Amino acid sequence: MRVSDLGELVLLERITARVARAGRGARAGTHPRDEAVAGDGRQRCDVVLGIGDDTAALRWTPGALVLATTDALVEDVHFRRATSAAADTGWKALAINASDIAAMGGVPKHAIVSLMLPGDLEAAWVDGLYDGLLEMAGEADVAVVGGNLAQAPVVVVDVALLGEVAPELLVRRVGARPGDLLAVTGTLGRAAAGLAVLEGLGDTPDDPALDRLLAAQRRPRPRLREGRALAETGAVRAMIDISDGLLLDLWRLCEASGLSVRLDAGRVPADPDVVAVMAAAAAVAPGGTRAGSSHALDLALAGGEDYELLFAVAPEDADRVLRGLVEETGTPATVVGEFTGHGTSRIVVDEGGLVRQLDPGGWTHFKEDLR
Amino acid sequence: MRVSDLGELVLLERITARVARAGRGARAGTHPRDEAVAGDGRQRCDVVLGIGDDTAALRWTPGALVLATTDALVEDVHFRRATSAAADTGWKALAINASDIAAMGGVPKHAIVSLMLPGDLEAAWVDGLYDGLLEMAGEADVAVVGGNLAQAPVVVVDVALLGEVAPELLVRRVGARPGDLLAVTGTLGRAAAGLAVLEGLGDTPDDPALDRLLAAQRRPRPRLREGRALAETGAVRAMIDISDGLLLDLWRLCEASGLSVRLDAGRVPADPDVVAVMAAAAAVAPGGTRAGSSHALDLALAGGEDYELLFAVAPEDADRVLRGLVEETGTPATVVGEFTGHGTSRIVVDEGGLVRQLDPGGWTHFKEDLR
Repeated sequence: MRVSDLGELVLLERITARVARAGRGARAGTHPRDEAVAGDGRQRCDVVLGIGDDTAALRWTPGALVLATTDALVEDVHFRRATSAAADTGWKALAINASDIAAMGGVPKHAIVSLMLPGDLEAAWVDGLYDGLLEMAGEADVAVVGGNLAQAPVVVVDVALLGEVAPELLVRRVGARPGDLLAVTGTLGRAAAGLAVLEGLGDTPDDPALDRLLAAQRRPRPRLREGRALAETGAVRAMIDISDGLLLDLWRLCEASGLSVRLDAGRVPADPDVVAVMAAAAAVAPGGTRAGSSHALDLALAGGEDYELLFAVAPEDADRVLRGLVEETGTPATVVGEFTGHGTSRIVVDEGGLVRQLDPGGWTHFKEDLR
Repeated sequence: MRVSDLGELVLLERITARVARAGRGARAGTHPRDEAVAGDGRQRCDVVLGIGDDTAALRWTPGALVLATTDALVEDVHFRRATSAAADTGWKALAINASDIAAMGGVPKHAIVSLMLPGDLEAAWVDGLYDGLLEMAGEADVAVVGGNLAQAPVVVVDVALLGEVAPELLVRRVGARPGDLLAVTGTLGRAAAGLAVLEGLGDTPDDPALDRLLAAQRRPRPRLREGRALAETGAVRAMIDISDGLLLDLWRLCEASGLSVRLDAGRVPADPDVVAVMAAAAAVAPGGTRAGSSHALDLALAGGEDYELLFAVAPEDADRVLRGLVEETGTPATVVGEFTGHGTSRIVVDEGGLVRQLDPGGWTHFKEDLR
């Protein structure tokens, strides 16, 4: 059964039923102006109108700011149907948006899902996409409140996500000061290494470390609790999530405040799985002279899709903030550098005394040499 | 200059500058938690953070509901670059979303623009797209607060639009009662006739009527003031905008309340320009036996993209509501039928005593015989 066999109306009905069964939606009631009821019968009092009207209608926490963001996954640009399961694509489409809300210290609430689908796509693929998206929605407590369906030559999953934050907890990109320390949650490089495995560049035997890399690429976990906990310390002065690679997103953080940064490469938390897998790959590569740990550092610096949080904190607050974070969420963070006050934003990387000034080397679209 | 020559970062900077120059954006200030300032220096106090952070941050009118909707234009599905100017495509991408907000009785406020672009697209085309989108944003007093850029094989303009409405003014699809009258604003069929002209089916000499049809197709005007005025009467029980054709959207209105409707074809306000142009085309068509007025009625019933408002009103309120609408907005509305209480939703069309029961014949995606 293909989506062109179903037609838009039937496909919409099918999606709406799926969202309702997952308890992640809210349908219009039968009387005007009454409350919506979630699919599982629970009242979801923030959703006055969900899927099924001209727009969603949402009730907001008094005084809270509305956060709004959008990010899309495009077939053969961000994923390939041959190597990405439909459910993983759906999960990721929501997760990458939730990560942006996390970077503001916010709480994600309502998703609007715009799907563009080729007419010959199997309807089961769309079911799978929603299964994964709804799994992520369950983890993040997000309701799917609306969307759109259209035909297109490739699959596009474009999610707009709304969230909320109390004004005093809002953390922006701007706000770092000279002397502030730069810190990052978790470890880096896993998603990029996972992509290299998917694309066949790091072909090695079955291995739990490989599975972890693939999982990081396929099902990134937005740092929602961590973003919230960091915002609540009141001591995080600026924050961004790492979607395009540490260097590019760090450059954005620097630019926002007109600062430079000195990055200590030896402290960048390259993921141990990445180091191990890259070392193994280097050992078997014909003529491979490059050390695995050096390649792992490259992936950690420029690989992208890690969705860790990168933030600025005053030196006197750093210990308290990092200790509080690991106590509250179990997630460690690592100080990897220090902001400096130069006029033009520069990233200076210190690799054990060898100092290089780097261009942001993360992934941007439209550059044909990059994915 | 192509978008792949510019790269994502430069293209984003270019778009941001364009939005700011139009006075329709708001950039982050230089200090954390301070107010955003619009591009023209005016404070826009509902936008705390616009383009340039991980998410937009928006301040809401206390007590107002958040309305959220999304709709996309896909190249070669909804428009062709050969026949649609970039600026018209930008205008329309925002207008079709604003129409959904109008149908709720709401006020549009914040747009998030997700663009998918082929790498070889001329950057000037993107400039033109934004020019048209910002013109519409100016008319509707909408701020562009964020978005996303990605590569794709065809152009996709996917807009998510937020608006607001006081809870007591919210008008939904559900709510019509048996005996309610069905009314529609303005006239119907212009946009579909304009499309026929664009596609070369109604090729006739230059004519101001033709220009009006093309304008309706290229630059639809969402009925924002009309939607608001109708909601404020407190007497409009259900409403929808006509995007997919009177019949299909009417069927949605019926289904929402579990009602049927009797539609008086003789009262459906087929646009006079459409009647004139179709009559002229029929007169010159080889072997054309079909009367222009019959074709005009078909376009009015099933053509789509009119973005007029279709609503239910109690018989005792109808005169007051329609008179008030034309006094306040200059836009007439016409009673075209009456809701009835059958169990399964049906549309019965009365054409001068000839009664037909119709399937919804509007435009749905994925059906290959339709556009």
